[in-house]
Amino acid sequence: MKIEKEFITDEAKELLLTDSIILQAYNEVKTSICSPVWPMKSKIFTINNIEKNCNGVVPIKELCYTLLEETYNWYREKPLDVLKLEKKKGGPIDVYKEFIKNNDLKRVGMEFETGNISSAHRSMNKLLLGLKRGEIDLAVILMPIKQLAYYLTDRVTNFEELEPYFELTEGHPFIFIGFNAEAYDPNVPLIPKGSDGMSKRSIKKWKDKIGNK
Amino acid sequence: MKIEKEFITDEAKELLLTDSIILQAYNEVKTSICSPVWPMKSKIFTINNIEKNCNGVVPIKELCYTLLEETYNWYREKPLDVLKLEKKKGGPIDVYKEFIKNNDLKRVGMEFETGNISSAHRSMNKLLLGLKRGEIDLAVILMPIKQLAYYLTDRVTNFEELEPYFELTEGHPFIFIGFNAEAYDPNVPLIPKGSDGMSKRSIKKWKDKIGNK
Repeated sequence: MKIEKEFITDEAKELLLTDSIILQAYNEVKTSICSPVWPMKSKIFTINNIEKNCNGVVPIKELCYTLLEETYNWYREKPLDVLKLEKKKGGPIDVYKEFIKNNDLKRVGMEFETGNISSAHRSMNKLLLGLKRGEIDLAVILMPIKQLAYYLTDRVTNFEELEPYFELTEGHPFIFIGFNAEAYDPNVPLIPKGSDGMSKRSIKKWKDKIGNK
Repeated sequence: MKIEKEFITDEAKELLLTDSIILQAYNEVKTSICSPVWPMKSKIFTINNIEKNCNGVVPIKELCYTLLEETYNWYREKPLDVLKLEKKKGGPIDVYKEFIKNNDLKRVGMEFETGNISSAHRSMNKLLLGLKRGEIDLAVILMPIKQLAYYLTDRVTNFEELEPYFELTEGHPFIFIGFNAEAYDPNVPLIPKGSDGMSKRSIKKWKDKIGNK
């Protein structure tokens, strides 16, 4: 997979230049979204483009999250205190990592969008709320670009669709990444929809990490 | 119908105290959301509470919008320039009015939420974008409160559900209104779902107003 489009707020740009932890977080995210290949033993990600909406998107997300969890030690399902404890409603952030270096703590929250456009607005607002409340120091959203999304699950959101709203994150360190397949070929296998055909694995949940403390 | 909950940002509070046009807009919205009665010839709004999700919500919205359009001269489907002309994507604002008094122009955009929670996030962000770009001077979102939403269309959003995110509108003049029925009674007729059984009327679209200029 490759990164084709990006939107990085001025605040995130500044952090990338001045904060080595934030730069490390960004590099881990980029490596993880670029790592999926298709078919499985290929060197690049080639998407079947035989017809609209013919591939699933969840397996791509899972490949990305697996690397984040298993190689880089990110955690899944991190609740924000503002939502869980104060407001007592709303779900957790998809993936999250606390980086500590020389007594400096930086917390990064990320969501890989596999829902529709309105669901992407909710993800963006959840991460914005986390930034505003000082519960995370950088937010990242991953989405397929429009050209790729055309061949993924119906109505999955794409980078260009949310792009008009990126400016609502100005003033906060926020990065939007639009990824694309390296090649399009109607002869490669289709990516299964949902989690069909995926190997079962146990995800690393934040609550289990906390529970072990 | 009655208003039971409200969230008014400091910026909107200030405007309500100092700007008679904004106060007028707010009063028109309040009158319009409080005007629906049920059953039709009753003096109050009584909702059938025989079971979860038994009533429709669209007819309530339509009664409110009808008053706004026909009595107060609001318009439907106002596109934001930033979305229509600049970004070339994204739908219009639900209802909109331009108030002019002593050469002072104030533009108010409003949405009555009948979709799910993620759709409410999108509406909020659309109105925020309009405020940020200076295309509207006040934004209003109407939603049923949770108690009432329980008896409306499945998954329709409610005031309490979006409430954790209201603070993202701080710094902008934004008003959230949570309405409720005056009474609950399992013996009143059900409100039809969708637009079934509603009288056809032609809505006042912004583009027709502009077209007539």
